[in-house]
Amino acid sequence: MKVNGYAATRQNAKLTPYSYELGEIGPEQVDIAVHYCGICHSDLSMINNEWGMTQYPFVPGHEIIGKVIATGNAVKNVAIGDKVGLGWMSSSCMSCEQCMQGEHHLCANSEATIVGRNGGFADKVRGHWSWTIPLPDDIDMSKAGPLLCGGITVFNPIILAGVQPTNTVGVIGIGGLGHMALKFLKHWGCEVIAFSSNPDKKKAIMEMGASRVINSRSPEELESIAGQLDFILNTTNVTLDWNSYLTTLAPKGRFHTVGAVLEPMEIPAFSLIMGEKSVGGSPIGSPALTKTMLDFCVRHNIYPEVEEFPMEKVNEAIEHLEEGKARFRIVLKNK
Amino acid sequence: MKVNGYAATRQNAKLTPYSYELGEIGPEQVDIAVHYCGICHSDLSMINNEWGMTQYPFVPGHEIIGKVIATGNAVKNVAIGDKVGLGWMSSSCMSCEQCMQGEHHLCANSEATIVGRNGGFADKVRGHWSWTIPLPDDIDMSKAGPLLCGGITVFNPIILAGVQPTNTVGVIGIGGLGHMALKFLKHWGCEVIAFSSNPDKKKAIMEMGASRVINSRSPEELESIAGQLDFILNTTNVTLDWNSYLTTLAPKGRFHTVGAVLEPMEIPAFSLIMGEKSVGGSPIGSPALTKTMLDFCVRHNIYPEVEEFPMEKVNEAIEHLEEGKARFRIVLKNK
Repeated sequence: MKVNGYAATRQNAKLTPYSYELGEIGPEQVDIAVHYCGICHSDLSMINNEWGMTQYPFVPGHEIIGKVIATGNAVKNVAIGDKVGLGWMSSSCMSCEQCMQGEHHLCANSEATIVGRNGGFADKVRGHWSWTIPLPDDIDMSKAGPLLCGGITVFNPIILAGVQPTNTVGVIGIGGLGHMALKFLKHWGCEVIAFSSNPDKKKAIMEMGASRVINSRSPEELESIAGQLDFILNTTNVTLDWNSYLTTLAPKGRFHTVGAVLEPMEIPAFSLIMGEKSVGGSPIGSPALTKTMLDFCVRHNIYPEVEEFPMEKVNEAIEHLEEGKARFRIVLKNK
Repeated sequence: MKVNGYAATRQNAKLTPYSYELGEIGPEQVDIAVHYCGICHSDLSMINNEWGMTQYPFVPGHEIIGKVIATGNAVKNVAIGDKVGLGWMSSSCMSCEQCMQGEHHLCANSEATIVGRNGGFADKVRGHWSWTIPLPDDIDMSKAGPLLCGGITVFNPIILAGVQPTNTVGVIGIGGLGHMALKFLKHWGCEVIAFSSNPDKKKAIMEMGASRVINSRSPEELESIAGQLDFILNTTNVTLDWNSYLTTLAPKGRFHTVGAVLEPMEIPAFSLIMGEKSVGGSPIGSPALTKTMLDFCVRHNIYPEVEEFPMEKVNEAIEHLEEGKARFRIVLKNK
């Protein structure tokens, strides 16, 4: 089967049309016709080989929404014609301790959709059935793509930390990931405080569910909420004044990062000890939790704020994202 | 009422006999005849004013076992003649959010037994009834003192982290605190790995419940247990190679410190994210949990390994501790 996609042929290159053959389908594999595909910052990192693991020609795209067009003879859960999503991971081993516990996203032998294989900036993509997530009937396919990577990345921490509707919570960085976190936490019933350094976003941030916006560059504003937050989710990947944020946590509060800041986080033990606080992190989430999240989204009509570009204008879309103009997530649409 | 104790009259001084008047008992206060008092490293830190909050003359001692000899007219839970313990804290406000939630040890208006008041290296000590913990009938009073501070400090994390009998766990630093942690975790049903840099202690460590001793100075030995531990308790207060320990954690593993290392802990976000790991800390524990711990200790005959010194030989005892010779905790006995 021939796939028509867009690839970077070398580091930092613009994407250009690129066709390739998928080869014979494996028994547990699923082929998907791509209807929509979100753009994630990690697509840019991979185009630019920032993590040293990009293989060129490189087809990005791992926030995929489409329909099943072919299945191997041992596929479960999905069938030809089903609406499905495929996110950061395309397969996992199914038999290790993590997979057997339903934590397929922590499998050490997993395969990422755009690492060493071709992703969803294309008309078709292939994945394992376990990561081919069936979509709820009533989902808006045009907006759902970003839920498959960015969405589950911020949904999983809410579950891991056991966030309760009675909690006061904070979200650091209101971009592609953070704005989805605001919406989830608002629908969770929480008091939601957004940390943002961009005053232009304030109105939109309040509309998406924040009850207050704190200027993260103002020590005085951080000080004003000392000891109040039960949970903070960090979606940025830059070094922050970690202890200032720990100070905004209530006793037993949890600081959770999904932003992979490269420098070590300097965490004072004394702050953890005196308030029984903790600092944790997580990657995406399991296939089962991804499905649960999608059901929750449909029940509450939660979608990312998306800007749609036609797939053939992928370079314009990437430029828009690189310039920091995305409000708040970009989705590519196939004809 | 006159109290006869031992005080440091200035920083780094030897203790000398010191008498003082307790004054009239408050309505919620309890006076305790001290039978035994453990020596904790924090007593030494306070004698030497390492934390800048010591008031001289200073009477150390906050691992107190004794009997109630007087009560104010609003005291609950304990009565004259009761066997009781008093640990790091001597009172808390009882009305803040933390106190009302049963987390009196996180009260911001609490009072520590040896901060700005006189502790248990004396024949009598005073505390609030809420921190005067009734002892189980069958407890061995001669060994129970260290449970009131060091014991609850390592017991609380086991509860906070939800450690299960099926878990594999590690304890870093097998001294006064760590050896009690080994015993608790062994009786929890866990596979227990001790991290120690002192080969002389290996036999004793195995006898106390470790199934394996890892030389914490050997990168190869740390490497040999990569990905295996569900929980690590750090009882040391020195800077460690934090990421090496994070590497020994299994997915979803928790690293918990009760050692207040002064330099910030350098924690790589990537290690937390990829394995859904976390780093936390805690101080002592609540009065309710302290009582629960004492019941557990009596049920399983768990006591610290103690070396007993007469109260009047307190300076010899302190020297023994300072020289690193304690195996594993020292208790002073009143005549």
